Amino acid sequence: MAMADLSQLSINQATTRAQWTLREAAEGYARAGVPGIAVWRDKLAECGVGEAARILAGEGLTVTGLCRGGMFPAADPTGLRAAIDDNRHAVDEAVAIGAQCLVLVVGGLPAGSKDIAAAREMVRDGIGELLPHARAAVMPLAIEPLHPMYAADRACVNTLAQANDLCDALGEGLGIAVDVYHVWWDPDLEREIRRAGDAARDGHKRILAFHICDWLVPTTDLLLDRGMMGDGVIDLPKIRRWVEAAGYEGLHEVEIFSAENWWKRDPDEVVRVCIERHHSCC
Amino acid sequence: MAMADLSQLSINQATTRAQWTLREAAEGYARAGVPGIAVWRDKLAECGVGEAARILAGEGLTVTGLCRGGMFPAADPTGLRAAIDDNRHAVDEAVAIGAQCLVLVVGGLPAGSKDIAAAREMVRDGIGELLPHARAAVMPLAIEPLHPMYAADRACVNTLAQANDLCDALGEGLGIAVDVYHVWWDPDLEREIRRAGDAARDGHKRILAFHICDWLVPTTDLLLDRGMMGDGVIDLPKIRRWVEAAGYEGLHEVEIFSAENWWKRDPDEVVRVCIERHHSCC
Repeated sequence: MAMADLSQLSINQATTRAQWTLREAAEGYARAGVPGIAVWRDKLAECGVGEAARILAGEGLTVTGLCRGGMFPAADPTGLRAAIDDNRHAVDEAVAIGAQCLVLVVGGLPAGSKDIAAAREMVRDGIGELLPHARAAVMPLAIEPLHPMYAADRACVNTLAQANDLCDALGEGLGIAVDVYHVWWDPDLEREIRRAGDAARDGHKRILAFHICDWLVPTTDLLLDRGMMGDGVIDLPKIRRWVEAAGYEGLHEVEIFSAENWWKRDPDEVVRVCIERHHSCC
Repeated sequence: MAMADLSQLSINQATTRAQWTLREAAEGYARAGVPGIAVWRDKLAECGVGEAARILAGEGLTVTGLCRGGMFPAADPTGLRAAIDDNRHAVDEAVAIGAQCLVLVVGGLPAGSKDIAAAREMVRDGIGELLPHARAAVMPLAIEPLHPMYAADRACVNTLAQANDLCDALGEGLGIAVDVYHVWWDPDLEREIRRAGDAARDGHKRILAFHICDWLVPTTDLLLDRGMMGDGVIDLPKIRRWVEAAGYEGLHEVEIFSAENWWKRDPDEVVRVCIERHHSCC
């Protein structure tokens, strides 16, 4: 373990969400030598934004993202307005803690709707409305395409191609969070990662975050059964090569939702295994 | 219910697999006036192919498909050879019961593999090897793209675009089974259905089967929690219009895997609800 290079590692605090507060996570990751963290808004709210900013800076952590904005589709204009307002607030929080991006989980179908095309239009329009505030705050927005199994209830942007199309349409200040869990199966993955790399210009990169974990076989829960790197079937080194060939130079953020396994373990052990597996499997 | 038009309805016997044998399903569907059935090979083996053929013909049922061939990717040449042999046998069984097509669930990653591109090549090569036998037997092969959540363990063909590409590459005798559960989320769905329609020529249609059910929110199991039409978020009339605009004139096959709900009900009730919902929601 003395040989592991930790310089590219970040841990999304969802990975230890059942065990640790924001302060405990920041201290725990830093204690292990992990240089990056991604923060969740519910944990941020518990801690308070000002206190969180002090803790994160005090530990010297790079904040690879704030999770999450998004959830734009709404059943009525009031709902859409509330979503935009909440997203503006999320942008401000991301700025306050020095996050590298605000991750957008864009939202699924509004209650009662079966019109996924309309939901996708609401997402495009919602991001379009949010962008001026994000640009003024110099906070990049990172669309995270989610696996198609979340299309109904979490995100109707389900492929990198869709995310690239949105970035092309909406312009500067918008990019993509590539999470291997959501995109590993995509036959167009290599092409769309390359496309994202080719779209970078004027110092603005499109790939804003790179999230890692693994797809377990079998997967026993749609939401909370993600695997540790190396325990599943995702070819992590290959996807990493593609992302780096597309110009990505940021940290690799471990994000594991695992109700029955990693969330039940000693969090210091979880961090240790993240370090080991990032070194040996990624 | 006297008004429901049953002439386009088929029921895949997976919908009552926990309750009924092949004979019971054939009799039960026919008793309710349903003109079509799709058969599973394990149920066929229980019954015996000859006896099954007599039962199905005796009930006057249209057999909209035999489930299933496929599962091509293998860890070694012996496994691949066994898969091809088993698929040839499946073609012969499909012919024996007068099925309209043999449905192919193409298979996922071989044991120990993380190379989904290689698995996809094995699928292409395996179907290529099977096709001469299927053509000689005049048994169309229907590739069923499966939802990306099955990419690792059931099918590495996960979009209609991939299935259309395979059909373009491998030629006559090969088509597609469109199952709304697997493809409803796809941003390219309308385009790829149209493409499949445009590819039909010389009386050979590419869309060989149309499977219906619904996507429940929440979905509690990756495999066995499909919904009855109308209980979920899929816009069934829209997809049906697209498929029919692409020239599909076959039956609509209800296929519902539902361990905790429909498989626990009186199967005659299940059939009655299938009829009602096909009439009111599709």
